[in-house]
Amino acid sequence: MSQLITDMAIFANEVSIEEVQEQILTAYRRVRGETERLAESLSAEDMQLQSMPDASPTKWHLAHTSWFFETFILASHPDYRIFDSDFHHLFNSYYNSLGTPFTRSQRGLISRPDIDRIYAYRKAVDMAMEKLLSEYSCSSSLNSLIELGLNHEQQHQELLLTDIKHALSLNPMSPAYSDGVLEDESDTVEPLRWLEIPGGCYGIGSDGEDFHFDNEGPTHQQLLQAFSISSRLVTNAEYLAFIEDGGYQQHRLWLSDGWALVQKHAQRHPMYWRDTEDGWQQFTLHGLQPLNGTEPVHHLSFYEADAFATWADKRLPTEFEWEAAACHLRQLDQLATANLLEKRFLQPLPARRGQTQFLGDLWEWTSSAYLPYPGFKARKDAVGEYNGKFMCNQKVLRGGSFATPSDHIRISYRNFFYPHQAWQFTGVRLAGD
Amino acid sequence: MSQLITDMAIFANEVSIEEVQEQILTAYRRVRGETERLAESLSAEDMQLQSMPDASPTKWHLAHTSWFFETFILASHPDYRIFDSDFHHLFNSYYNSLGTPFTRSQRGLISRPDIDRIYAYRKAVDMAMEKLLSEYSCSSSLNSLIELGLNHEQQHQELLLTDIKHALSLNPMSPAYSDGVLEDESDTVEPLRWLEIPGGCYGIGSDGEDFHFDNEGPTHQQLLQAFSISSRLVTNAEYLAFIEDGGYQQHRLWLSDGWALVQKHAQRHPMYWRDTEDGWQQFTLHGLQPLNGTEPVHHLSFYEADAFATWADKRLPTEFEWEAAACHLRQLDQLATANLLEKRFLQPLPARRGQTQFLGDLWEWTSSAYLPYPGFKARKDAVGEYNGKFMCNQKVLRGGSFATPSDHIRISYRNFFYPHQAWQFTGVRLAGD
Amino acid sequence: MSQLITDMAIFANEVSIEEVQEQILTAYRRVRGETERLAESLSAEDMQLQSMPDASPTKWHLAHTSWFFETFILASHPDYRIFDSDFHHLFNSYYNSLGTPFTRSQRGLISRPDIDRIYAYRKAVDMAMEKLLSEYSCSSSLNSLIELGLNHEQQHQELLLTDIKHALSLNPMSPAYSDGVLEDESDTVEPLRWLEIPGGCYGIGSDGEDFHFDNEGPTHQQLLQAFSISSRLVTNAEYLAFIEDGGYQQHRLWLSDGWALVQKHAQRHPMYWRDTEDGWQQFTLHGLQPLNGTEPVHHLSFYEADAFATWADKRLPTEFEWEAAACHLRQLDQLATANLLEKRFLQPLPARRGQTQFLGDLWEWTSSAYLPYPGFKARKDAVGEYNGKFMCNQKVLRGGSFATPSDHIRISYRNFFYPHQAWQFTGVRLAGD
Amino acid sequence: MSQLITDMAIFANEVSIEEVQEQILTAYRRVRGETERLAESLSAEDMQLQSMPDASPTKWHLAHTSWFFETFILASHPDYRIFDSDFHHLFNSYYNSLGTPFTRSQRGLISRPDIDRIYAYRKAVDMAMEKLLSEYSCSSSLNSLIELGLNHEQQHQELLLTDIKHALSLNPMSPAYSDGVLEDESDTVEPLRWLEIPGGCYGIGSDGEDFHFDNEGPTHQQLLQAFSISSRLVTNAEYLAFIEDGGYQQHRLWLSDGWALVQKHAQRHPMYWRDTEDGWQQFTLHGLQPLNGTEPVHHLSFYEADAFATWADKRLPTEFEWEAAACHLRQLDQLATANLLEKRFLQPLPARRGQTQFLGDLWEWTSSAYLPYPGFKARKDAVGEYNGKFMCNQKVLRGGSFATPSDHIRISYRNFFYPHQAWQFTGVRLAGD
Repeated sequence: MSQLITDMAIFANEVSIEEVQEQILTAYRRVRGETERLAESLSAEDMQLQSMPDASPTKWHLAHTSWFFETFILASHPDYRIFDSDFHHLFNSYYNSLGTPFTRSQRGLISRPDIDRIYAYRKAVDMAMEKLLSEYSCSSSLNSLIELGLNHEQQHQELLLTDIKHALSLNPMSPAYSDGVLEDESDTVEPLRWLEIPGGCYGIGSDGEDFHFDNEGPTHQQLLQAFSISSRLVTNAEYLAFIEDGGYQQHRLWLSDGWALVQKHAQRHPMYWRDTEDGWQQFTLHGLQPLNGTEPVHHLSFYEADAFATWADKRLPTEFEWEAAACHLRQLDQLATANLLEKRFLQPLPARRGQTQFLGDLWEWTSSAYLPYPGFKARKDAVGEYNGKFMCNQKVLRGGSFATPSDHIRISYRNFFYPHQAWQFTGVRLAGD
Repeated sequence: MSQLITDMAIFANEVSIEEVQEQILTAYRRVRGETERLAESLSAEDMQLQSMPDASPTKWHLAHTSWFFETFILASHPDYRIFDSDFHHLFNSYYNSLGTPFTRSQRGLISRPDIDRIYAYRKAVDMAMEKLLSEYSCSSSLNSLIELGLNHEQQHQELLLTDIKHALSLNPMSPAYSDGVLEDESDTVEPLRWLEIPGGCYGIGSDGEDFHFDNEGPTHQQLLQAFSISSRLVTNAEYLAFIEDGGYQQHRLWLSDGWALVQKHAQRHPMYWRDTEDGWQQFTLHGLQPLNGTEPVHHLSFYEADAFATWADKRLPTEFEWEAAACHLRQLDQLATANLLEKRFLQPLPARRGQTQFLGDLWEWTSSAYLPYPGFKARKDAVGEYNGKFMCNQKVLRGGSFATPSDHIRISYRNFFYPHQAWQFTGVRLAGD
Repeated sequence: MSQLITDMAIFANEVSIEEVQEQILTAYRRVRGETERLAESLSAEDMQLQSMPDASPTKWHLAHTSWFFETFILASHPDYRIFDSDFHHLFNSYYNSLGTPFTRSQRGLISRPDIDRIYAYRKAVDMAMEKLLSEYSCSSSLNSLIELGLNHEQQHQELLLTDIKHALSLNPMSPAYSDGVLEDESDTVEPLRWLEIPGGCYGIGSDGEDFHFDNEGPTHQQLLQAFSISSRLVTNAEYLAFIEDGGYQQHRLWLSDGWALVQKHAQRHPMYWRDTEDGWQQFTLHGLQPLNGTEPVHHLSFYEADAFATWADKRLPTEFEWEAAACHLRQLDQLATANLLEKRFLQPLPARRGQTQFLGDLWEWTSSAYLPYPGFKARKDAVGEYNGKFMCNQKVLRGGSFATPSDHIRISYRNFFYPHQAWQFTGVRLAGD
Repeated sequence: MSQLITDMAIFANEVSIEEVQEQILTAYRRVRGETERLAESLSAEDMQLQSMPDASPTKWHLAHTSWFFETFILASHPDYRIFDSDFHHLFNSYYNSLGTPFTRSQRGLISRPDIDRIYAYRKAVDMAMEKLLSEYSCSSSLNSLIELGLNHEQQHQELLLTDIKHALSLNPMSPAYSDGVLEDESDTVEPLRWLEIPGGCYGIGSDGEDFHFDNEGPTHQQLLQAFSISSRLVTNAEYLAFIEDGGYQQHRLWLSDGWALVQKHAQRHPMYWRDTEDGWQQFTLHGLQPLNGTEPVHHLSFYEADAFATWADKRLPTEFEWEAAACHLRQLDQLATANLLEKRFLQPLPARRGQTQFLGDLWEWTSSAYLPYPGFKARKDAVGEYNGKFMCNQKVLRGGSFATPSDHIRISYRNFFYPHQAWQFTGVRLAGD
């Protein structure tokens, strides 16, 4: 895994402070620019949309990621002048330590500031950050905050895409996010094989040298029994077999809470699938498209992923099994060419020869609850609200998706969502005993 | 009351068909232009907002009013080519006869078509309408539909203002709809007097010669007992006395359903009032403003209006009493200078010498339920859904507001809203036995 | 209409005070005994049930009707000792003047006091009331309160039946309230004829000599146009034709609010009808029974009643038309043998020769909103909460049902429910212009 | 831990089949009798109450536990005649394999069958079971089902108490479940000490020889780091310090989902505490009682337990830590005298010298999500719905409470509830690193 910035190299005298500053600046410009590129194809009206409380408008993502740098880095700097005092409240996501955040479900109602002012805000923050980086000798703790801010912004790059996809999906005209030509997907997919992983103690979590979120540590040992894990993601065709076998009508395949939801919503297929006169279609970032059987099935809830696994007489891997298997494979050099954001396919692709899809393509539901690793302690300041307070009721997902930046993902990365949520780019990998 | 167009004059040979066509064209251009002028100060993002299911985005109002002409007039014309076949569904408000309307609560999620395309739609409809009016000898029934379309658009002009006001009110920065300078309101207001109206049989409803909605007829007699009615609207200062006397805490003043709402929402003042360190403020189309005691109190629900009347040991007038009193006053020539949309005050004004405020300033809650007049029958075609199907659970309001076009209002006009609704420009006039 | 008690006779010297007291005592015993007879067939568990917030447990009805006498009559009497101070709160229905009533939706959770204690409460109240009536020379105002209390209890007798019917209907075993043998209903019903009522001024409301609720006054004149009204209630067979014609699928037949409910609940038939393998059945107080086509259709909401009338190209009568027609018929002596509570049929019966069903059988929805008559003023004390505060959002029903005591109903009687409510014994009579 | 029945002994020739049958019969009679004793103090009306969808009426518990024996054991027996065919549907809790269960939230609306018929049902089932046990040579699989049925009934004994407590708590008169005299609680409690448990591999789960639920296996090793665990439960006085320190107002102490609930309900104390003029009281099975500071705090949600731990700068133990610590202590013989159901204290007691409260007193929230142990597979028949399908969104609790039968609890026992639920007899034990 490449990393954005490496403090360690300085201490090792491998690089000078100036070189580090230069690296940070380059990374800063690249990440900030990427966010704006992702919004390029959208109109002011598109960027205003909030289609559900879980999702946020593009405009809000553009502002909130700047707010993060302003609030946690610039605000305490004597030279910096707050861009707009109202923004402190408006673009706070969930940091109660910084005052009551603006009501999440009403983010789509903030037409003013308009998008031009948000871009002016971004520019002002960028100028101040560049000045800071060029004029001051940055401390290690400042560098850490900048790294956190950039990783934070990369998370919102992916959310920007999941959220605008959801908003556009409610438009009966099924508009496309991107005019880009669709990847010419092959009709074939690698056959599914089972990788056998031996039992034993495995080291889990980040070793702390490179950037990682606090929830990836402390590193520790997990005792695992031998298990098998599938060599690629489950495909649309495989999931269709589950549907055609009455998967959504058989209570015994479902967890109790999942079955209740399926009944309540009379659900019969994944959220973006549409059963049309011309066969199955799915809504994508390229608009409505025919369903490709070889493509990995995506936008499943945890309940759907789990029910499919039960139907297949398999199960989902735990997050520890996933990490152990991914590390195992890394040693075998099989993770070279992942489908991540920079490729701009904006969709998962059929697994090709030699691809395992552990990184990229789709976030993979694990059976693990999102809980602290042994010895985890959240920081007591505002930044401590980043991860720790969400460690209840959610499930861990691993591996990143086609919308995750390549220098953002790593094997120890723990993403987390509620089991009913399916608007993220989620998929399924199976495991067995 | 001036009227937009008068077919009758043709039959009376007072005007030629060409003159009528010319009058219609003039009215058409004026009304359509007014709608666009009302949207001029808004950005594409402002026009996208839908703050609650009851309200619609400005963009939707701009489109739906064009849809009305396209659907009910142009669509059946052999020369006309539908602008965009998706619009038939997207911009249908509630005409089930024309297919299932797009989900009302999701109007704010339609970012595409964007505002430029909506203006192109308006232009295409306008050109087709002008061509129709210039090339064809219009029938009486066509003229009626055009008149209906123009009155329909005028209704949406007022809704455009009530809806954008509601949306902007949720922005914690309290932005103004209009940069216009506030009317320099006087500190004085006419003292409240009681007009005595004798009992007897009164003719109610439209006589059918000028334009009116179907719900204003048939004309008929109502037997009324003698009553008194107040000479102007209730002011903010008068309403404040009610609040300060604990009006929102005394159950005995409230209808049972109103009391339940007051309790549920812990309501203590009208919806746009704010109790600040600097005293009472209210959110207006001019932004947040100090409360002016002499101005008529507005944005009351029917429950608040009724509770205030009970507190004052009075009652609300019935719609028949209101109409009888207004007709009575008309004979006395006291209705000359009403505060209506063209004045662009965008707020109610203190009653001045000689003003009764029967027309303009604020819609006045009556105690009457919105029910059909004796002998009323809704048309059986799609246009028949305009009024009749709403004749349940709503209350009649009379008289128009500062946001009502002057050639749209008339004494027989029946507006209607649910008793809990307060986002319209509503006020109170008292009556007594 | 017979009346319970007549003060007027005393002033006319027609009866002595002792005779009046005796009449009151007789009436008191009869009404109180009737309530207990209605509960005789129910177990302690049956009497505990509350199946929805609108309905109350039988036990609560037994207690609340006693609470009424205790609170409004006995409590102020120096000799009387409150039976249980907790009951003041527990059995207050909606009198805010008497403190916050116990949460309506939780009446079914009060297992203690148990039913034996409630009967002891009734007995204690009865003994105190009898003592009062035998030892004191009652004032006219006291007599009025006793009359009110007895009429109040009679209202709860009907509610006891509607509420227990609803509760038992949710038991999948469809238990019967009554083991009584069903009336042997004839297969025939009188053909529906149209009674023509001339236009003119009609006196409406109670004249004040006999007992009536405050909402029945003041008497006043209503100017009515000529109309026709059907000679009997609409039958199950007639309503079935509406269903079979797709009545529940045709939006144009429905008021907008009604159509929204029909869609939301996918409603296709009246609430107690069941579409079984053996044909239509309906849940009744005698358990599940085959649908009898000649019986009046019942348990319709106002929306269903209105949609049926629209389908039949008719309308519902106003409450004034209903009263004018009923008075007209009274003069013709056609109201002799109504199906009321004492007959204990516990169901509506097919109209037989000479029967118009204006009184008894079913409450008839009118098109009138429940509003105050001209000059109505609610009393300012707690008793004033009886009727006035409900005069919003409800519809007037007239005529009583098979569950209404015969000395409780009268032509001027105004019952009222929300338009969506159908668990009362409601039916339809049509009108035309 | 004593166990109800031990098949293993037969195979070891230690006991004869007859002796085993005799043991089973004794256990059957004891467990079934205990359920009825717990209901003895309740009236038919008490037993009808259902105060929320999570809770069930006492009457339903009495019936459902009999349904379990009838459905899983008797029904397949040729000699047995089903007691009432409607009961199959009415008293099915959640076994979708056996048809759609009756709506859970409406269990309180089933007044018929009445309580006498339920006791007749119990008697019929008991007679058939006794006949089965006396006449047939029972197979091992049958014995297993009987054991499961008895353990199932014991679970419902505790639920019967938690559910009736909740129902009675909503009665404003705060009635007591039990007239029994309260334990004379001491004013003192053992000081809280920290037990140090060394790191290492610990065997977790049941070894399969004695009765256990399927979710307690397979046994497996868990690698634990060294940790400390508190020597007794947290007391009311300790929890009060948290409240008085503003614990319910400090967002940083709470998990995000917990904080949302605290805000929504404006919660300020545990659910059965009441802040009265006479100081803190709590509603108990003995009615309303003054709060005793030395008693273990109970009826906490997981969120409250976790926030308290965070406030105390500690954490909750994992279920594996809890089990490792409890096993550790067992070897030291410190678990002799637990406060379990047979003691009939019906409340948790202050920890006395030598007591650790690991078993009995209160169920202890752990930080572990309720997930399958490695290699767990649910049975594919109806009994397989017992535990597996609930392994999502819930938290594990350990140790039993004062309402758990002593031959029902064991160290490997895994109870589970949603993190917001607090109507169970739940408490807190702290852990540290």
